[in-house]
Amino acid sequence: MKLNLLLKFALLLFLLTNATINASFQQKRELLQSHPNLILTKKSVLEIKSQLGNVPVFDKTLEKIKKEVSIEIEKGIKVPVPKDLAGGYTHTQHKINYATMQKAGVLFQLLADEKYAIYIRDMLLQYAKLYPTLKRHLLSKSYAKGMFFWQCLNDANWLVYTSQAYDCIYDWLSKEETVYLNKALFKPYADFLSIETPQFFNRIHNHSTWGNVAVGMIGLVMNDEELVKRALYGLDQRSENLKAKDNDGGFIYDKDGKAGFLANLEAPFSPDGYYTEGPYYQRYAMYPFLIFAEALQNKKPELKIFEYKNGVLIKAVNALLNLTDKNGVFFPLNDAQKGMSYYTSSLVSAIDIAYYFGGKNPELLSIAKKQNKVQLDITGLSIAKALEAQKEKTFVKKSLELSDGAKGNEGGIGILRYEKNEKTLALVFKYTAQGLSHGHYDKLSFSLYENGNEVIQDYGFSRFVNVEQKNGGGYLKENSTFAKQTIAHNTVVQDEASHFKNNYEIGSKHHSDKYLFDDSNPNFQIVSAKEQNAYSNTELHRTMMMVKEKELIKPFIIDVVKVTSTQNHTYDLPYYYLGQIIHSSFRTNVYKSQSTLGKRYGYQHLWKEATGNSHDSSTQFTWLNNKKFYTITSVTNKDDEIILARIGANDPQFNLRKDPTIIFRKENENNALFMSIIESHGTYNPVTEKAKNAYSKLLKIEVLVDNSDYSSFKIHFKNGKEKILILSNKNNRENKKHSIRINDKKYSWKGAYYYKLLK
Amino acid sequence: MKLNLLLKFALLLFLLTNATINASFQQKRELLQSHPNLILTKKSVLEIKSQLGNVPVFDKTLEKIKKEVSIEIEKGIKVPVPKDLAGGYTHTQHKINYATMQKAGVLFQLLADEKYAIYIRDMLLQYAKLYPTLKRHLLSKSYAKGMFFWQCLNDANWLVYTSQAYDCIYDWLSKEETVYLNKALFKPYADFLSIETPQFFNRIHNHSTWGNVAVGMIGLVMNDEELVKRALYGLDQRSENLKAKDNDGGFIYDKDGKAGFLANLEAPFSPDGYYTEGPYYQRYAMYPFLIFAEALQNKKPELKIFEYKNGVLIKAVNALLNLTDKNGVFFPLNDAQKGMSYYTSSLVSAIDIAYYFGGKNPELLSIAKKQNKVQLDITGLSIAKALEAQKEKTFVKKSLELSDGAKGNEGGIGILRYEKNEKTLALVFKYTAQGLSHGHYDKLSFSLYENGNEVIQDYGFSRFVNVEQKNGGGYLKENSTFAKQTIAHNTVVQDEASHFKNNYEIGSKHHSDKYLFDDSNPNFQIVSAKEQNAYSNTELHRTMMMVKEKELIKPFIIDVVKVTSTQNHTYDLPYYYLGQIIHSSFRTNVYKSQSTLGKRYGYQHLWKEATGNSHDSSTQFTWLNNKKFYTITSVTNKDDEIILARIGANDPQFNLRKDPTIIFRKENENNALFMSIIESHGTYNPVTEKAKNAYSKLLKIEVLVDNSDYSSFKIHFKNGKEKILILSNKNNRENKKHSIRINDKKYSWKGAYYYKLLK
Repeated sequence: MKLNLLLKFALLLFLLTNATINASFQQKRELLQSHPNLILTKKSVLEIKSQLGNVPVFDKTLEKIKKEVSIEIEKGIKVPVPKDLAGGYTHTQHKINYATMQKAGVLFQLLADEKYAIYIRDMLLQYAKLYPTLKRHLLSKSYAKGMFFWQCLNDANWLVYTSQAYDCIYDWLSKEETVYLNKALFKPYADFLSIETPQFFNRIHNHSTWGNVAVGMIGLVMNDEELVKRALYGLDQRSENLKAKDNDGGFIYDKDGKAGFLANLEAPFSPDGYYTEGPYYQRYAMYPFLIFAEALQNKKPELKIFEYKNGVLIKAVNALLNLTDKNGVFFPLNDAQKGMSYYTSSLVSAIDIAYYFGGKNPELLSIAKKQNKVQLDITGLSIAKALEAQKEKTFVKKSLELSDGAKGNEGGIGILRYEKNEKTLALVFKYTAQGLSHGHYDKLSFSLYENGNEVIQDYGFSRFVNVEQKNGGGYLKENSTFAKQTIAHNTVVQDEASHFKNNYEIGSKHHSDKYLFDDSNPNFQIVSAKEQNAYSNTELHRTMMMVKEKELIKPFIIDVVKVTSTQNHTYDLPYYYLGQIIHSSFRTNVYKSQSTLGKRYGYQHLWKEATGNSHDSSTQFTWLNNKKFYTITSVTNKDDEIILARIGANDPQFNLRKDPTIIFRKENENNALFMSIIESHGTYNPVTEKAKNAYSKLLKIEVLVDNSDYSSFKIHFKNGKEKILILSNKNNRENKKHSIRINDKKYSWKGAYYYKLLK
Repeated sequence: MKLNLLLKFALLLFLLTNATINASFQQKRELLQSHPNLILTKKSVLEIKSQLGNVPVFDKTLEKIKKEVSIEIEKGIKVPVPKDLAGGYTHTQHKINYATMQKAGVLFQLLADEKYAIYIRDMLLQYAKLYPTLKRHLLSKSYAKGMFFWQCLNDANWLVYTSQAYDCIYDWLSKEETVYLNKALFKPYADFLSIETPQFFNRIHNHSTWGNVAVGMIGLVMNDEELVKRALYGLDQRSENLKAKDNDGGFIYDKDGKAGFLANLEAPFSPDGYYTEGPYYQRYAMYPFLIFAEALQNKKPELKIFEYKNGVLIKAVNALLNLTDKNGVFFPLNDAQKGMSYYTSSLVSAIDIAYYFGGKNPELLSIAKKQNKVQLDITGLSIAKALEAQKEKTFVKKSLELSDGAKGNEGGIGILRYEKNEKTLALVFKYTAQGLSHGHYDKLSFSLYENGNEVIQDYGFSRFVNVEQKNGGGYLKENSTFAKQTIAHNTVVQDEASHFKNNYEIGSKHHSDKYLFDDSNPNFQIVSAKEQNAYSNTELHRTMMMVKEKELIKPFIIDVVKVTSTQNHTYDLPYYYLGQIIHSSFRTNVYKSQSTLGKRYGYQHLWKEATGNSHDSSTQFTWLNNKKFYTITSVTNKDDEIILARIGANDPQFNLRKDPTIIFRKENENNALFMSIIESHGTYNPVTEKAKNAYSKLLKIEVLVDNSDYSSFKIHFKNGKEKILILSNKNNRENKKHSIRINDKKYSWKGAYYYKLLK
């Protein structure tokens, strides 16, 4: 067998040399069709082998992978009968198996040690033997029950990775073996994931992307054009039931009847590369998107997949990197696990592929350097060589707007940033569409970060991925009863009901609208958006500004929320601060016994800790977190209620984090105006025990004007300075001239906002 | 003036040269009496100056101090009329003033730049002018109202630092100036802090230590023997009212009538160097203790202060360093702010002084290296030189016991540690005396740390030091109503009442007793203690073990609490875990509305979140914190109540942290046995989303025997292994032979415990 292998390599070398010098079209064709030709190719394998030892990051990754695979080979092959849910033994073992096979395939190609091929073959033979004996997972409650796993999604993962391993040993296997494996395992498995589970395969959803890519990858390996076509364009069959939903409450079938890989590339990505489900799922989907794109580029270059939709795949990687905090952790928009970052393996692939196929942007190298590992193919080699040549530039995250919607006209995400002397602030303002089934009911919500720490948090999802004790690692009930609800977010709630009354069908029809995004002045950055549909006959208009005053070390955030309605309502605006309350200018009453804030729409999960009335036209609330002092200074009416609440009621399994919030409540108003300034103003050091700038620099805020055309405020600083802010509520044109009279003084300016010293 | 200075230096040089070669006793005497001679001396200044530029850490510190002082000199001298409480402007300014003067004094000596002397002189003259116009602080509610500050303690701080500055410029000042300052400021101020405030000066307490040292230091500078004597031995006057108390509830007068620096060195330190108030206050007191010791060593070497009480000052530094977690943060025993660490400036002094005067222990250098700064005197120079010569050895924190009580017979602290491959565990078990007024009612309590993070926390105190908004930075009401109470700690509460019914007088009469401390077997370390007086007719006996099983990565903690009483009672044993609940083997009911757990003794501050019954003889409770999985496996009776509670009720100012606890409750029992095992068994990675070892390795625990002589348990591991633990409850002798029959099997061993595989 070893001799056989050597002969094959010799032949290949001969062919290649010939091919590059004087190859006929037919020879090239043959070359393309001989394995590996999916991610690794005969040519790239030779290129990589010639560089080994001179590309430290690549060499180090290879070494690590070698060790990991060695450990698994030593343990012996285990292909247990599927039984457990996520996080359980059989689930974890099958995950380990596909990951190890993929790695072993690469090692076989790069190190030419047959033990890797034998390992893969023997494991595949076991899977081929097991597969026909199985039915769909017994314990599963998934809308698409899996075979080796509880849900098809994991089975698709299995096939995406295993296809790569199979490609790497395809030519090494005997003809009989490949025919057997194709027939007994891979073809039926691909059919199972597609034809037999259309509700999984034929959607616009990250699940389907995995399904499409799984089928496409194995199709490419087996040279099965029908499977590749199925992957690219979806199934022909269409369901009658357009209202059918998955476990997350998402629609199973797209109303336009589109499906397949290209449709999944088309619809959920905006022209800016924002993925409508949010960065957590974008991160997850990036691997199948990009690995299949690489395979298609290798095998079907005529598709020009990386140029598809103006190069959206490369743009998507850039968008994703911009959706991270200082430490590279993704903003947890919509359903998202906190802590997930660009150190995840799918982002290693994404960076490497985007670098190689996307014009070799040197800023990507600085991320790759932090990741300190690469994909073991030509793209990773390219990164490793560039890093060795010290070509990297810092990836600078600037303020930017990312549009949502296939055409970029369904709202978006506005990110305002500040960075100086290691001090960073990032404001993330969300005015997107619903975001498919993983979307939250959080129109015009925001979150705020300082140095990679949350100041005003987005809750994220309620789920412990792969922690078996918590519902098998799946979504928890509290995700829909709390985490997705409006009151779980930093945005306005009308009459204690979530946006669109928590109705996914209705929410999916609408999106917020951008009103303004202007980061041209680093000392006054502004983003503004409107939401017309969350509540009937009500317009929500929120404008957020990041303002740097010369004499202050850090910028503060001005937050103006203007609600206009035809009827009277109650409005709640929560801020999910973290940490400990230091001072409030208003008095609150605490309770001898605690009750919930409400009965539905997430309110049933909030304990009412204290309530009070503002008693003043401007209030302050100071807290301490991560050794920093923060203050919210707010415009209030004298009878505004201020509620201090805490998450955690009606949570029998203790699935929720017991985090606090402050809620500003206005009752019985049709038009309501909320205006607050959020400052990070001081620090506390428990070693020196010094409190530096423990007090807000603001004295108070006054409303000067508030009508349908303009809202204007006077901001009083403690140092005596006074500033006037005027926002144009209706006309957002840059060149529009405005002129109004306030307190017998005339203000004239151009554009949608005015912010100056009061003279 | 400059010329004058140069002449003085020339003269000094002449004198010194002469002195060292052929000095008469009289000349030596004169030399000792010429300034500086307190911390810096004429001789050490010359030595330091000769080394400058060659001692990086020293040079760097000097550079930093220079910058800090420059900034202050540029700002100009500000000596405001005292007005504010802690954290306020005048308070902070006077603190800055004394700190800057002390630094400027050093700079004057080392850099011979007169601007520093002028700065100190001019500031002192302003203080001398201000002082006679003042009365005791108006807003203060202190038992010892201060003059420049709200409390005498801060005034004493002022004098300790300012004395050093004064010493540095004493010879530079004119005779008229020193006579004036002595008379107008320093002598009356020293009298104010002592004779006029005996309730502050004449105690056994860290406050008095500062007072003693303040008076002693200025006495040494002014050559006022009477003041030095007063400092060393206290005031003659004795109060009639032995029951008078300070703001913290501590006794003002010692019943034995002892006072002064030497008494404060005698009584609160155990022979092992443990300071009875706990490490947080020990850290604070170390500076006056050691800086005065250094001054005394310089000026009154015949006192042999560093040999006092078998060298307790040096031992105290060693004890303090051992009372820190992996990151150098002090264990928050008794009243303590979390986060305080050996990076604090008083520990820089302490390390430097202990190194120089305590035999130059190279392990101290590794701490000094981390501190990366030194005291600017001969001790700091010595550290800097040794660091430059790379003489440091790692400071190894081993398991150890520190006795409490002046004679070391009043219980103590047992610390069990484990460290391997960057994995560390530290168990801190407290069986001390009351700890003066800063003591907590927490007999036999413990806390547990992993890699410097809290696993089972000690709450610490309820106070935000120097955060003015929080009660002027002083102690909060909740410190006495919650933080000091027994239920705030991880120890047994009888009938919902704190130890000694929270009575300081009674608590101060008693201490717990060591039963056993044995760290000789690194795989089975054990500490055990008894408490006879916390509740009448009741004995509490707790034994804690750190056990490393070969097949487990980390050790676990076995916790056995045996309560013996003549009557039936309710017993609560809380564990203050942190983080989120992952699973419990018992069912709990959560409440629609939350009420407090009780009415008094801290129970009024706990919300009852859920209660349930164990329904089994062994229960498990798993949580996730800092990406680690922890489980408590407990022996339970079927009708034991398990309470999940959270701190925060009846807390109108939100002074308390809203941390959770699990409480095991046994009702209507006279003898109660609690037995639990605390495991750190797994990890969670939010980037790879892998849960590793998310389940406990233990199956259950069984009680085999429980009587007054022995308690025995069978520990069932999930891998089938079974271990037998037998504790001798009455006889703790190492050589005592035991033999008992359990389930028809005979066990024979020597010593107070048996832990072996069941064969």
